[in-house]
Amino acid sequence: MLDKSIIERFKNIVGEKNVETSSMSLHSYSYDATPGFRKTPDIVIAPHNTEEIAEIVKICNDHKIPLTPRGSGTNLSAGTTPLKGGVVLLFKLLNNILEIDDQNLTVTVQPGVVTKSLIEKVEAKGLLYPPDPSSMNISTIGGNINENSGGLRGLKYGVTRDYVLGLTIVLPNGDIIKTGGKLAKDVAGYDLTRLFVGSEGTLGIITEAILKLVPMPEYKKTMLATYEDIDDAAKTVSAIIENRIIPATLEFLDQPTVEVVEEYNQIGLPTDAKAILLIEQDGPESVVNKDIDKIAEICKELHAVTVSVAKNEQEATALTTARRSALSTIARLRPTTFLEDATVPRSQVAPMVKEINRIAEKYNVKICTFGHAGDGNLHPTVPTDVRDKEEYHRVEQAFAEIFEKAVELGGTITGEHGVGAMKAPFLKLKLGEEGVRALKNIKQSFDPNNIMNPGKMFFEDDEKGE
Amino acid sequence: MLDKSIIERFKNIVGEKNVETSSMSLHSYSYDATPGFRKTPDIVIAPHNTEEIAEIVKICNDHKIPLTPRGSGTNLSAGTTPLKGGVVLLFKLLNNILEIDDQNLTVTVQPGVVTKSLIEKVEAKGLLYPPDPSSMNISTIGGNINENSGGLRGLKYGVTRDYVLGLTIVLPNGDIIKTGGKLAKDVAGYDLTRLFVGSEGTLGIITEAILKLVPMPEYKKTMLATYEDIDDAAKTVSAIIENRIIPATLEFLDQPTVEVVEEYNQIGLPTDAKAILLIEQDGPESVVNKDIDKIAEICKELHAVTVSVAKNEQEATALTTARRSALSTIARLRPTTFLEDATVPRSQVAPMVKEINRIAEKYNVKICTFGHAGDGNLHPTVPTDVRDKEEYHRVEQAFAEIFEKAVELGGTITGEHGVGAMKAPFLKLKLGEEGVRALKNIKQSFDPNNIMNPGKMFFEDDEKGE
Repeated sequence: MLDKSIIERFKNIVGEKNVETSSMSLHSYSYDATPGFRKTPDIVIAPHNTEEIAEIVKICNDHKIPLTPRGSGTNLSAGTTPLKGGVVLLFKLLNNILEIDDQNLTVTVQPGVVTKSLIEKVEAKGLLYPPDPSSMNISTIGGNINENSGGLRGLKYGVTRDYVLGLTIVLPNGDIIKTGGKLAKDVAGYDLTRLFVGSEGTLGIITEAILKLVPMPEYKKTMLATYEDIDDAAKTVSAIIENRIIPATLEFLDQPTVEVVEEYNQIGLPTDAKAILLIEQDGPESVVNKDIDKIAEICKELHAVTVSVAKNEQEATALTTARRSALSTIARLRPTTFLEDATVPRSQVAPMVKEINRIAEKYNVKICTFGHAGDGNLHPTVPTDVRDKEEYHRVEQAFAEIFEKAVELGGTITGEHGVGAMKAPFLKLKLGEEGVRALKNIKQSFDPNNIMNPGKMFFEDDEKGE
Repeated sequence: MLDKSIIERFKNIVGEKNVETSSMSLHSYSYDATPGFRKTPDIVIAPHNTEEIAEIVKICNDHKIPLTPRGSGTNLSAGTTPLKGGVVLLFKLLNNILEIDDQNLTVTVQPGVVTKSLIEKVEAKGLLYPPDPSSMNISTIGGNINENSGGLRGLKYGVTRDYVLGLTIVLPNGDIIKTGGKLAKDVAGYDLTRLFVGSEGTLGIITEAILKLVPMPEYKKTMLATYEDIDDAAKTVSAIIENRIIPATLEFLDQPTVEVVEEYNQIGLPTDAKAILLIEQDGPESVVNKDIDKIAEICKELHAVTVSVAKNEQEATALTTARRSALSTIARLRPTTFLEDATVPRSQVAPMVKEINRIAEKYNVKICTFGHAGDGNLHPTVPTDVRDKEEYHRVEQAFAEIFEKAVELGGTITGEHGVGAMKAPFLKLKLGEEGVRALKNIKQSFDPNNIMNPGKMFFEDDEKGE
């Protein structure tokens, strides 16, 4: 419980109507999109600007009050669950696109801007902001930056990190710093910009960002290949790249996933196929046509049962929308859905999918696997019920083994979702004790009082909240 | 002076012949490519592998012996001058390309590999490693990573940072950590990989790197446009980008630069032109032709006096080689050459060039300006003589004012050369006291004994050595 005088100080900073303390409000911010984690915060505050945030942060730092920044809470690592209580900081009043700069190909945004709306605004000017996490209809740019979000276009275009040029940051001591700028090159000191991208709100509060844009590709084509054998699909992924083609999107869906996606979307996906590849290429028309023809050839050589190119934009959108709906459709099967993102080198996709299937059988859990095959970023997804303790335990064991296997195959415990509270116990699998120690030292150097999103990234106890 | 017993311990680790203590050897490593800085180290050591480096680092840490890692010493920020003495660590025995991975499009290298030789090796496999600093014929990949080197292809392809996927690092406490991997996506903890890229050897020793490759573009065209008016050249740069074309290379040379480059290279550059743009596009043939045609059109619209496309590979190479020779040819004019890399947003190239010319006049110094106009990364270069104290003082004042102006225009004090000892006094211009404090805290968290390349990045005293 916060002292009344502190609540008054917060109200004086942001105005009474931007402070919420009712139990209903607090409950709404006690969890995020990640199942199994919940903790009621003490207060929810929506500041107007960087200066107000600096004042709030100073109070929190002085009184060692935990502070969890939160965009739309769509993350899948319990990254925005306020596990230690305290303040939840909202960005709903910081949701403006401040400038689209045609000459420097940049957009300057506040963190509360919804990803999709940013993408649409810049597309209207013939520009592309590539990072497109599946949650982009509701996720915010601030959340994307804090989690270093990926998406379907990551293979060709990279992830959020590759598009952040500059940040305004409030540090835990209340200092306001500006990093980078509208600059393609800047080596003045350590790369604070990229250190903050993906830092999960544990080092400071991002209050403004300069993002890089690229020219909108003139043309796009979408195709689908179906396989009787998962191995052939995985081999196709490698073969495309070995042929020096980098598609914009190269997605994989296994049979269990296709079944539920088709049941919900009804767009004619072949539910009997063991695996589907959804492939998209963009660029100049002649190049796209040449690439898609070559890809179709490769698919056929590697025993694809069917290879079909979307006839028009509508058909293409139906396909990618179906893929984007994978999580939400699987979520309809059971009360709880765990979605992971163990990631391996592209060449290890086939062995990893096999391991996932073996592990599913070993622990007797249903695992639907889909994901960004082109960059080895798989999403093994388990429909379950957290209230069934025995089954839940098996699910946890299965995931632990999946993480171990991913690292064994040269991969990582998380490709795009972040560590959060969810994967904190597994961080040392990837980085070793020495690596985790180095990260903890960085955390300590920025936030000695551990007020910034505590309980995330670093495993302290098996804290899942209330 | 190092204790004899410590020298013995170093000899035991790497073998007697890989330790140098003769005054001639020590003298060779007392300076780098940056004029005005010199300090004799106590010992020069060439280890064979990561484990030996960890042993050396532990000894240095225990005894607080300064340690400066050094590739070829081509940096221009005094980044490898051993300003506090101690150990210079060489990578000449760690110079192997360990693996080119066709499926994952990666190359795994030791830090001592020469940049050009890496580029040639991967090109032979139809792959491109884009970062191409002007010093690439002799610079090493380890140096490139520590400085986050740029180059002529930065506009389209980005800088070294964008191609580093994973690192093996010896931390100042002797811990060995591995970051990243052959992974397009990895968000397991803070981005240690990018924190180390550009950290100038101040946080640890990089002993191995996994680099990203891209497919080799199938076709390339090079062109030259000359201008009577610098403003028109700068406007052309902006107009090309506004037309949604991102050339591979977009270089600017002013008249004083063209004069000296032509005198040395004799390739027919028009020495009467006030400015020259050297433009290169690569990609599929049809796209390159279309882009180059459109760029030629834009150049003419903006009053280019001549626009000519290189007729063949030979002519194209002559042009880019001439550009790459700018520094070395200017260096022939006077005993000392200072080359800076103040960088501004692309839209500010014209105002910045004007400011540079104004400042040259104000302090009565000759400044040749050339550089990567497409990414706003300019190289104002001053041929001078450090022995002429009065002139040298004016040069220093001129550069200080150039840095101030660059930051004022939304730019930075260094785009690709690094801070080193040279620009340490100016770091707070860009980052503010608060930003520099944050960087110092990071440094302190990794290297509490300040053994790693001390005297760099952070301004302590006006230390230029002996």
